[in-house]
Amino acid sequence: MLELNTRQKIYRVIFETDTPAGQRFDIFLIYIILLSVLAVMFDSIASVNNQFGSWLFRLEWIFTVLFSLEYMLRIYSSPKPLKYIFSFYGIVDLISIIPSYLALIIPEASYWLVVRLLRVLRIFRVLKMARHLAEANLLLRSIYQSRRKVLVFFTVILVISIIFGSLMFLVEGPEHGFTSIPKSIYWTIVTITTVGYGDITPQTTIGQITATLAMLTGYSIIAIPTGILTAEISNEMRKERSHRHCDNCNRNGHHNDASYCYHCGVQLPDSDI
Amino acid sequence: MLELNTRQKIYRVIFETDTPAGQRFDIFLIYIILLSVLAVMFDSIASVNNQFGSWLFRLEWIFTVLFSLEYMLRIYSSPKPLKYIFSFYGIVDLISIIPSYLALIIPEASYWLVVRLLRVLRIFRVLKMARHLAEANLLLRSIYQSRRKVLVFFTVILVISIIFGSLMFLVEGPEHGFTSIPKSIYWTIVTITTVGYGDITPQTTIGQITATLAMLTGYSIIAIPTGILTAEISNEMRKERSHRHCDNCNRNGHHNDASYCYHCGVQLPDSDI
Amino acid sequence: MLELNTRQKIYRVIFETDTPAGQRFDIFLIYIILLSVLAVMFDSIASVNNQFGSWLFRLEWIFTVLFSLEYMLRIYSSPKPLKYIFSFYGIVDLISIIPSYLALIIPEASYWLVVRLLRVLRIFRVLKMARHLAEANLLLRSIYQSRRKVLVFFTVILVISIIFGSLMFLVEGPEHGFTSIPKSIYWTIVTITTVGYGDITPQTTIGQITATLAMLTGYSIIAIPTGILTAEISNEMRKERSHRHCDNCNRNGHHNDASYCYHCGVQLPDSDI
Amino acid sequence: MLELNTRQKIYRVIFETDTPAGQRFDIFLIYIILLSVLAVMFDSIASVNNQFGSWLFRLEWIFTVLFSLEYMLRIYSSPKPLKYIFSFYGIVDLISIIPSYLALIIPEASYWLVVRLLRVLRIFRVLKMARHLAEANLLLRSIYQSRRKVLVFFTVILVISIIFGSLMFLVEGPEHGFTSIPKSIYWTIVTITTVGYGDITPQTTIGQITATLAMLTGYSIIAIPTGILTAEISNEMRKERSHRHCDNCNRNGHHNDASYCYHCGVQLPDSDI
Repeated sequence: MLELNTRQKIYRVIFETDTPAGQRFDIFLIYIILLSVLAVMFDSIASVNNQFGSWLFRLEWIFTVLFSLEYMLRIYSSPKPLKYIFSFYGIVDLISIIPSYLALIIPEASYWLVVRLLRVLRIFRVLKMARHLAEANLLLRSIYQSRRKVLVFFTVILVISIIFGSLMFLVEGPEHGFTSIPKSIYWTIVTITTVGYGDITPQTTIGQITATLAMLTGYSIIAIPTGILTAEISNEMRKERSHRHCDNCNRNGHHNDASYCYHCGVQLPDSDI
Repeated sequence: MLELNTRQKIYRVIFETDTPAGQRFDIFLIYIILLSVLAVMFDSIASVNNQFGSWLFRLEWIFTVLFSLEYMLRIYSSPKPLKYIFSFYGIVDLISIIPSYLALIIPEASYWLVVRLLRVLRIFRVLKMARHLAEANLLLRSIYQSRRKVLVFFTVILVISIIFGSLMFLVEGPEHGFTSIPKSIYWTIVTITTVGYGDITPQTTIGQITATLAMLTGYSIIAIPTGILTAEISNEMRKERSHRHCDNCNRNGHHNDASYCYHCGVQLPDSDI
Repeated sequence: MLELNTRQKIYRVIFETDTPAGQRFDIFLIYIILLSVLAVMFDSIASVNNQFGSWLFRLEWIFTVLFSLEYMLRIYSSPKPLKYIFSFYGIVDLISIIPSYLALIIPEASYWLVVRLLRVLRIFRVLKMARHLAEANLLLRSIYQSRRKVLVFFTVILVISIIFGSLMFLVEGPEHGFTSIPKSIYWTIVTITTVGYGDITPQTTIGQITATLAMLTGYSIIAIPTGILTAEISNEMRKERSHRHCDNCNRNGHHNDASYCYHCGVQLPDSDI
Repeated sequence: MLELNTRQKIYRVIFETDTPAGQRFDIFLIYIILLSVLAVMFDSIASVNNQFGSWLFRLEWIFTVLFSLEYMLRIYSSPKPLKYIFSFYGIVDLISIIPSYLALIIPEASYWLVVRLLRVLRIFRVLKMARHLAEANLLLRSIYQSRRKVLVFFTVILVISIIFGSLMFLVEGPEHGFTSIPKSIYWTIVTITTVGYGDITPQTTIGQITATLAMLTGYSIIAIPTGILTAEISNEMRKERSHRHCDNCNRNGHHNDASYCYHCGVQLPDSDI
């Protein structure tokens, strides 16, 4: 009985966020994650590595031990350990500690220490849990609502890129840096997204005219995803503002004369308005 | 009678999308198109061409035969073959198979094999037919609604580009890369669309001040097409919403993501949007 | 009587757009303007100038004579010639023909022939007159409505540019291309507007961190003018859609229960709704 | 009594903006600030400094004396001098005069004269006070409303940058300019914000594919802050509109650009917006 109780207590602290201890744990975790990410980043700078390499190595082991402990506690306290282990965050948790141990056995694996940076993904888990960050949900819902429009948009981008890319390959050719169609498509995306590195640029007049068209296309179609998302966000915000609430699925935005929840179909309490 | 029946059956599979066979055909077609496009793209990489050229050549002939077959079936099953042949997609279909045959007769034409990439345009036909992609229609309608505003916008861009272009030609001159007014206009569009390759950059102080003005102009007027399109998309989405209908109680005005009628609680059919 | 009549007829054709002759004149004018602009542009390309210079010279004289004739007819037919001459378009009309005559007297002035490109501004007059381009009016009204917000926005950009510019001057210094504060500010605007030529780039670590902040600032504040303009355009479009019309000032967008025009204060006819 | 009266009068002129004298003081101050900022900027150009250095030096001392006087008057007239001294603008006021005095004592400090450019921040004080610039408030309120959404957005940018940055470090490595993870992250932000200097560019095929993904990500997620802010600005503008009041008939809901009450036809006071 006691054993189970401890496990449940640990579960509440580690996995949930509705107790003061749970919130302190989350904030502590975010700091540790950011610190360990900073350590990995600085370790990759040659001059820092030469001077402080051994310190960073020890620091990294402290983080690794902490994360390993946390990982074991998560498995231990989880009601369904296997489900946790094979969940997205379970795999991220594992991947972000393995490289340090691997580097002990196979010294050549040190290059893969970079993989530890995937730890940064764990920040999302903390954010996701934090109920007061309803904003993230509104954004995700808006993006989810517009997913099919965005798919159509990316198909259009793909087709435009292939057509402009092959055109530029024909017009400019390998002697001006457009050595293959995939490379031309790379150039087209650099141009359409208005990034414009300038590592490859059109040299012929026809090439420059084609490039101009690609730029204007890119400059204009940026309006499409913005338009879609703005319309969806406006829509979701309007729903949030209207305060009729469904206790079953936590949605807002019911019409004043609504009798049923549009999302889960449950009967709504009478409107106060 | 039987003959006509077969033809009509083929028509339904190839040209329409409301039968399971028609949908399977569409999905198969998209895969084949994408594969053949990938093959053409990889073929243009010198190293791949050297090593796998003969394999890609054979693969290309399989695609060519498949597309030729499809083209003939389309002509055969079409109620008005000539109308199909001279339609936009009819021409695209033809153009995307001709180069392979041409390369047999005239070996020098191999450069024009790139034209086969126009195949990628055929994806739009499949998308257009797919009824559940009502999103594409909403986007097209929004763009169509705002066509005149966009025309005015492009006229403004044109005039601004010519004025900034000739200014920079006067200020910087050929010695700093602004060798002619068309080239200066090319630079202006590179700048206004915020692409900024950096292949030509202003060197004089007055040139840099003028360039700064061009950048701020470009950075600001991107707001115009975005504003236009967003307003149109919002408008179209509001219309769509007000048309969503419950067959049970005849109410309109359901949210896009509603699963149940807010009035009678009956499950709604899937939204087209 | 007859003389006056002719003058008025000419006025209607040249200055107005509500007769078929007036519309034909406008369209003819746009073509001539575009052609003459193209001629000036091509003339600036060294190779074209060498080969076709004399042809372009003759072509230019045809345009100059045509525009001079038009200018004289405008003065002749204008009820208040002086008002026309000193109006914005009157000056543009004059400036776009003077350089050709000047080049006859002072051969060295040939460089200023580029000024003829200001002709392109005359396109706006035609657009402005065309009543069916109400879109341009909607856009202009939206921009006018948001003028003060945009002013605040540009002040913010100015202050941000000066601060980032002087920071980068301190951090990177002349040895990395940031030779003076004005040049650093030029770099900052290249960065904030996301143009990014790459002619000057930060080399030190602190410089790159500062640059990163400048980029994120620029990437985020583009949302501000877009947001302002989108809100205004939505607003103006909503007004356009509501069909209650003021016959005095041609505005739409009156409330259903409005009794007076919100713009000119004239009493409105009763609402049909 | 008289002494206090003078102090209060000075306070009204310097700190407030509701008297003609106060407004004249503000406008004079803005000009002086801009002039002194221009002087510091030009002084940093080597050739200008060589030729006009001594003139700019004298000019700077005039500004310094003026600002010192103003600073002392502010302390003198302020009801709570300490509160003013340690306020944000109090510190800015002090910092923008100290460097000139410091340069007298320690000649090597001349480099820090650049700090005087922080004067430009003082423009915001004048703007903030100006009551008719309610626009700035609307913008600030919209940004404040969306602060949590923007925080989520920047967290996403951070995580995306770290992941793409470490990926590119693995894929491209130090030999192609990606010398460390922080440098790779710098490159990622240059790419995601679509700045695209081109000082570091991917050379390998896998690197270019990854870069393409980063560009498309950056090109798409710009829609998120724009969408958020547009929705908030629309919302704030709707609120402002509904608060516009006619003193004659007590109606609200006048358009932002309305000059007359739609209900009683009486002229409305100027909109704050």
